[in-house]
Formats: sequence, structure tokens, C-alpha cells
Amino acid sequence: MTAFLDQLRQIVGAAHVLTDGDLAAWEQDWRKRVQGKALAVVRPADTAQVAAVVKACAEARVALVPQGGNTGLSVGSTPDGSGTQIVLSLTRLNRVRHIDRDNLSFTVEAGCILQSLQETAEKHGLLFPLSLAAEGSCTIGGNLGTNAGGTQVVRYGNTRELCLGLEVVTPQGEVWDGLKGLRKDNTGYDLRDLFIGSEGTLGIITAATMKLFPQPAAQLTAWAAVPSMEAAVRLLGMAHQHLGAGLTGFEVMGQFALSLVAKHMPQLRVPFADQEDAPYCVLLENSDSESEAHARERFEHLLELAFEDGCVLDAVVAESLAQAHELWHIRESIPLAQAEEGLNIKHDISIAASRIPAFVAHTDALLQREIAGVRLVNFGHLGDGNLHYNVQAPADGDPKAFLREQEERVNHLVYEAVAAFGGSFSAEHGVGALKVDKLETYQSPVALSMMRAIKNALDPLGIMNPGVVLARG
Amino acid sequence: MTAFLDQLRQIVGAAHVLTDGDLAAWEQDWRKRVQGKALAVVRPADTAQVAAVVKACAEARVALVPQGGNTGLSVGSTPDGSGTQIVLSLTRLNRVRHIDRDNLSFTVEAGCILQSLQETAEKHGLLFPLSLAAEGSCTIGGNLGTNAGGTQVVRYGNTRELCLGLEVVTPQGEVWDGLKGLRKDNTGYDLRDLFIGSEGTLGIITAATMKLFPQPAAQLTAWAAVPSMEAAVRLLGMAHQHLGAGLTGFEVMGQFALSLVAKHMPQLRVPFADQEDAPYCVLLENSDSESEAHARERFEHLLELAFEDGCVLDAVVAESLAQAHELWHIRESIPLAQAEEGLNIKHDISIAASRIPAFVAHTDALLQREIAGVRLVNFGHLGDGNLHYNVQAPADGDPKAFLREQEERVNHLVYEAVAAFGGSFSAEHGVGALKVDKLETYQSPVALSMMRAIKNALDPLGIMNPGVVLARG
Repeated sequence: MTAFLDQLRQIVGAAHVLTDGDLAAWEQDWRKRVQGKALAVVRPADTAQVAAVVKACAEARVALVPQGGNTGLSVGSTPDGSGTQIVLSLTRLNRVRHIDRDNLSFTVEAGCILQSLQETAEKHGLLFPLSLAAEGSCTIGGNLGTNAGGTQVVRYGNTRELCLGLEVVTPQGEVWDGLKGLRKDNTGYDLRDLFIGSEGTLGIITAATMKLFPQPAAQLTAWAAVPSMEAAVRLLGMAHQHLGAGLTGFEVMGQFALSLVAKHMPQLRVPFADQEDAPYCVLLENSDSESEAHARERFEHLLELAFEDGCVLDAVVAESLAQAHELWHIRESIPLAQAEEGLNIKHDISIAASRIPAFVAHTDALLQREIAGVRLVNFGHLGDGNLHYNVQAPADGDPKAFLREQEERVNHLVYEAVAAFGGSFSAEHGVGALKVDKLETYQSPVALSMMRAIKNALDPLGIMNPGVVLARG
Repeated sequence: MTAFLDQLRQIVGAAHVLTDGDLAAWEQDWRKRVQGKALAVVRPADTAQVAAVVKACAEARVALVPQGGNTGLSVGSTPDGSGTQIVLSLTRLNRVRHIDRDNLSFTVEAGCILQSLQETAEKHGLLFPLSLAAEGSCTIGGNLGTNAGGTQVVRYGNTRELCLGLEVVTPQGEVWDGLKGLRKDNTGYDLRDLFIGSEGTLGIITAATMKLFPQPAAQLTAWAAVPSMEAAVRLLGMAHQHLGAGLTGFEVMGQFALSLVAKHMPQLRVPFADQEDAPYCVLLENSDSESEAHARERFEHLLELAFEDGCVLDAVVAESLAQAHELWHIRESIPLAQAEEGLNIKHDISIAASRIPAFVAHTDALLQREIAGVRLVNFGHLGDGNLHYNVQAPADGDPKAFLREQEERVNHLVYEAVAAFGGSFSAEHGVGALKVDKLETYQSPVALSMMRAIKNALDPLGIMNPGVVLARG
């Protein structure tokens, strides 16, 4: 191993092969569920160095765990405990290589921080719409590897839909340059989308050409109290109809989730908190290519129709950017408020919007019947059919004991219900090492067998992030 | 072989195994470039029958050529001349299985005619935006197999972007049901996008869940004369900025292409035909979720800014639906007018929009230098960077002789230029059997090697549409 590590030092420089000291930042996952042990943390500076490192690893049969900002929620970039795996940190590949304004695209390296890409786009008067809670530290390579979602998917799609092309280092250490930036290109199999969402198990994404959009002239936010989940779904349909592609955000939040925000962040004023006939609130965002006045007029038109229909009981349109930020801040504070309340069991599920009301009614009742006093923190991106359907310990219970004793059972009940309603057990967080067994249980055996065939075909040595997505062969 | 054919007859019924009579409708490609010879044309009625046929073919090592409406332009669904291949016609799988209004999706079988799907959506007050010249006879299975493009890609994307999930019969005759209709689902590798665009070489798409959209409240069409291709690209940027997602069409047409329409379809009045300072015209479409008045106001605002900028010399906004249809009809008549003028050499290329002006200037000059009197019919979906850059024989030449003598040379010059400008030799028509050699030449060897590995992994017997996309192994 000494010779191997020396070889890596020659490739990336001795300063960028970390073996001593506190490597916890790379060896532990974001939610601190798993503590691994790496042979070394290797930090290449460019694609050529990544390719050389992968070649060296292939020769030495050393497994690689690619890592970006290490903010993943499914333990997809944490080394195992064996001390034999390399963490390949991509954070030094952080250049914006090229901005092409007429093509509405830019080519960026895997280690670029998402927020810095949003800012780069903004400096050029353009919009890079990918937006999610970890944007201050997650990298675009990680977003691509996990096909991250976030808050603007209803209009702009997941990371997949924002990508025009990739540069990838294969498990053999070859470089595939797929960075043409074309919007149409039917020349063979779609390798781009195969790598997106493969969580580093088929190759290492080193750069990408991503779509940019004109900045909207105005962005307005509204908050509506709705009488039921059915009403929220109906409001979604009306918003699609009347705002068209202006609808850039549609989030639903249960009143219990909001009550935790009110309790733990008393400085935030949660609208319609006392409205007892409104079990849910909805946050809507309208982006307009014309003007703020026009955006407001369209919003008011939609909300009038929604009042008439009865799917909205009360609503407020933010009067200022500050107020809009506060509304979004409430929505984004739910996970933190949950954490303040105590440990909880998280799910990242998706179901066709049409079936969400029945799913929630069924699963709420099931859990309340099975586990006395259980509290449901239900919120998420209803516009994409994506719920963070989380389960909090009973108010008088011990959260730690609850997690220890109930997590497996709760997961089983929730995922069985998701499957019965034709949904997915992982909407936007990926599989990682955390949900490999769930994939075995809930993914179609025919699909699994094709996935294994592809993994073996592209990575026959099995050195790319083994044990992530698919169980070790 | 008799026993094998009897087996097929047992599966699909004797009436649906065609071996005698005129099979030209299945054995010849749309553009009549290739005449194949099939062992039989097999017409299953449902997915179970498709699976049984594939199983029988796998056992007997008989190759399958899946076929929809047989309107492909790259010879991707024509049997070879050996008389040993089965044409698997999917046209009897033509049910709309389910419309889910709240999820804005429908699940349709592979053999559904595209136009009938547009009409089904319309009947439910919704829009299925895929639209292309062959829509009256092409099938959605073929659209998915080739990842078809068309005229609304600038807003809604290619067929790929419109698809939420697939049902596929694998080369082993297993059925993969991926029809959940979810907008977010990160549970393993993206098999959906691997099958889309794989032209029947990895499996057979039997059904799909496709996105639907609200119908726009109004759709307006404008026609603008522009002083250069640079100006057309600038206008595209302004249209993105000021129409936002309202921009649903952006087509460019060279004056020579339009002059052929004027010559061969004199009943059509081509606007700005005599405008000598305008080498190109642009057709724009604006879809508005509000009203026709609003759409018109936005169009006029955009065109005013474009006049001031100088990127538009003259423009007309259609006053009626009939006038809008006539403008689109002019655009869509270019291929027919070309055919009237005589045989020609067609290319379906894409290049980043920013590089299109330089590409066109370079390649126009090159061809005119190399082949005296050559005439360039340049038009296409500029909003997607997709040009149909076609080459017509000199006015006084013999088109047949021109094709015979010059096609290979012209293709070489054009495709080399496309490669030099970072483009694709097949934007929306696919590879088929026609462009397998082009794929070998212009696709990256690293990518090719991954494609071959995937083909071998999923179809180890090599029975799925052999010789299409990839050369025979």
C-alpha cells in the first residue's frame, strides 16, 4: 500500500493525499449516521489527475468513493469501515470553464458549489434554477450524481433535466467528453442520463454543461390555507392552468409541521396558524417574464378562482421581497424545527399527485392506529408529488427510544403503503448505502437485474463506490 | 422454421403472422432507401404477447426488428435482406390505458398514433405537445425509440423530456413495468432514458406514461425577416428573455428554401420573399396561459425591441388562426418543395446556437467553393440548435447524377464541419442502420465502447434490431 499511496502522491501532489489527522469531514456522512475509515482522502486538481488516480486504483484493485460537498442524505459518499477505500474528493475541480450566453448554458466542474453557480449565472443576468437546502455547501457533481431535486422542480425539472452533457472518468480511467452543450443529439445510447443519479457507481462525473435560463422579471410568493390535501391537489391543477410555466414553486405543509416552526422559531410569524379548518398550507411561487404588477395580477386572479372553488380558505401574497423570503424561510425551517423537537424518522417519497390525498389519509390513519400518539410531520414539494413524510415520537415519549424501537417498523409501514399506492421510496435523496435493502425489496426484479448487468458491464472490477445503490456483487 | 412460425401463430393468432403477399409496407423504409426481406411480420395484440414472441425468438435465436408507423428517416425499423428476421409490428398495441388529470399524465401503448394522442389530450382539455411532420402515422413507441424532436422542443423538450416512465419487454422476454408516472424517482439507474432513443436495440417499448400540460389560453404566430443568422440567434435570446416559457416555437428558414415553396406551391403567400437584405426568416410561436390579447401585447413588445435592436427588419403577427396555420404550413412545406425541385442530400444536425452563424458561414462557403452552383436549403428548429442543412443539386444539373456522384463527398464535408464546430450529425432522426458508420466515425471511442458494453450486457444474444445504432458485433 505504501507504493500505491506514493503513486497517488505523484499524481496529485503529497499535500493532496490525506492519510493522517482528523479525516472525519470526509469519513462521516452528513447526518452522522455512519463513520467510515478511508485508506486516504485524495484531492485531484483536474480531470487528468482524476483519470490517473482511477487508473492507479484499477491496477491496484482499490475501491473509490467519490465525494463532493458530503451533504448527501443517503450515505452515498462515505467510505466503509475497512480502511481500504479511497475517498476521491472532487472539490478542487471548481472552475466555471465557459459561459455560453447565446446557448443559454455553462460548463462547470464537478466541485463547484451550487450556490456559487447560482451567483455566477446571476452575474451574467441569467438564472441557474437548481435550488435546495444544502446549496451553500453541496457541489454540482454531487447534485448530478444523486439527481438532486429541490424547490423549483415543478417548473425546471430535477438536476437531470438541467444537464446538457457530462465529462466522465470511466472505471478504466478513460475520459468521456460529452460536453457539446447540444439540446438535441440522438447519436447512440443516452449515457448522460445513465451517469446522472448513478451515485458514483459507474464512473466519476468531472464536469457538466448545464442549462441556464433568462432571469424572470419578477418573482412573487403566496401562502394559502387549504381545507384538505384534496384541495391542495386541486389548487395545483388550477395553478398549472392559470400560471402556466410561471408556476415555479408549489410546497405543501401540514399544520403540525408548521406548529413546530412556530414553537421553536418564535421570531417567525406563521400565517394561518390558528385556522382550525385548514389542516394544510401551501406556498406558491410565480415567476413572471413581464413585471411584478403582472405577476401580482395573475396571482390574484388564480386566488380569486381558488376561493370561489373552495380549495383555498385564506391567502396572502407577499408584499415585498423580505416578506417572500420570510415565507420561504418558514418552509425551509421545518427540518430544523423537527430536529429541535427531537429525533425523528424521515422519508423522502413520491406518489402521483392524484393519489397523494388517499395515500396520506390511509397512512396517517395506519400509523396512528399502530403507534399510539405518533406525530406526523408532513410537508414537501407537492408540485412534484414529493413528500417528506416524517414521523415524530409521541409528545411525551423519549425520541431516542422511539427511534431505536420503532424506526424499522415505521419504515416498513410507510414504504409498504408507498408501494401499494404506486410510489417511490426515494424521490430525490437517492439510494446510497442507506437504502440498498429498500431497493432490493421495492424495485422491480427485472429492473434490478438490468441494473446489475449494466454495473458489471461498465465496472467489471467493482471498484466504483461498491455497496452504494446495488449490494456488493 | 415452420415449427417456429407455428409457435408465433399460437401466440398472436394465425391472422397476425404475415408471411405471404405484399409485405412492402413493413419491409421498406419510409424514404424507400432500403428494401428488406422479413421471415414474417408479427403483430401482437398486447404486452404479454410481445413478451411471448420475444421469448420464442430468443430460444430460436431469431432477430427482431420492432416497428411502429414505419416513418423513421434513418432506416431503423427495416429488416435486413436475409429473410431471417421478424418484423415485430406494435401497431395493435394502441390503447390509451389511463388518463390521470391531477397528475397531468397519461399511460398509452406503443402503437398509439401520435396525432390520436394529441386529440385524446385535447378532448380532456389538455395538451400533449409532441408535434412533428409524421404525426398522422408515426407511433409514440417509435417517437420514444428514436427520441423524436419536432417543432415544440424549445419549450417542452424532446420525447425524452415528455416521458415519465416506460413498460419494456427485455431481450429475455421479461416485462419491466416502469409506469408509475412519478416526477421524481431516484431508485437506481435511469433505465427509462437508456431505452428512449435506443431504437429497439435494447428491448421493446410496449407502453409509456407521458406528461400532459394545460392547454394554453392562446397561441400566436409571428413571421420575421432578419438580416443575418447572427440576428436570428440574437432574436432567439430576446424571445427567451421576454416571452419566457411562452416561446413554444422558433424556426429559421433561408430565403432559398422559401423560394422553393413559393415556386412549387404558388397558392402559398410567403411573407418578405422579396426582401433582399433579409437572407433568413424566422417563425415564432407564443403560447400564453392568459389570453390572446396578452399574447399579442407580449409579441408586439418583443418585436418592437427587436426592431430597435436591428435584429428584425420586418415582421407580421398572424391576425387569425387561419393565418397562423398558413405560416406554419409554409414552414412545413419546405421538405415537399425540395422534393418537387428534385432529389437532394439531407442532414439533420445540431450545434450550440451560439456557433450556428459561424458554422453556416463556413460550410456555405466551403460547399460553394467545392461544388460549383450547389444550392443550400437551410432551415430548422433554431431554438434547439437543430438545422436541416440540405444540399440541392445545381439548378442546371441532373439531381440523380448529383446524388450519385456527390452525396458521399457532401456528407463528408458537412459532417466534418459539424464535428469541427462541436455539433452532432444526428439531432433528432437517430442513427438507424443508415448512420452506423457515422456513429463509428464521429462518436467518442470511449462512449462507443460503453455503448457496446451495455448492448452486450442487456442483449447478449444480439437479437434486438441487430445492425441498428451499433455495427453488428
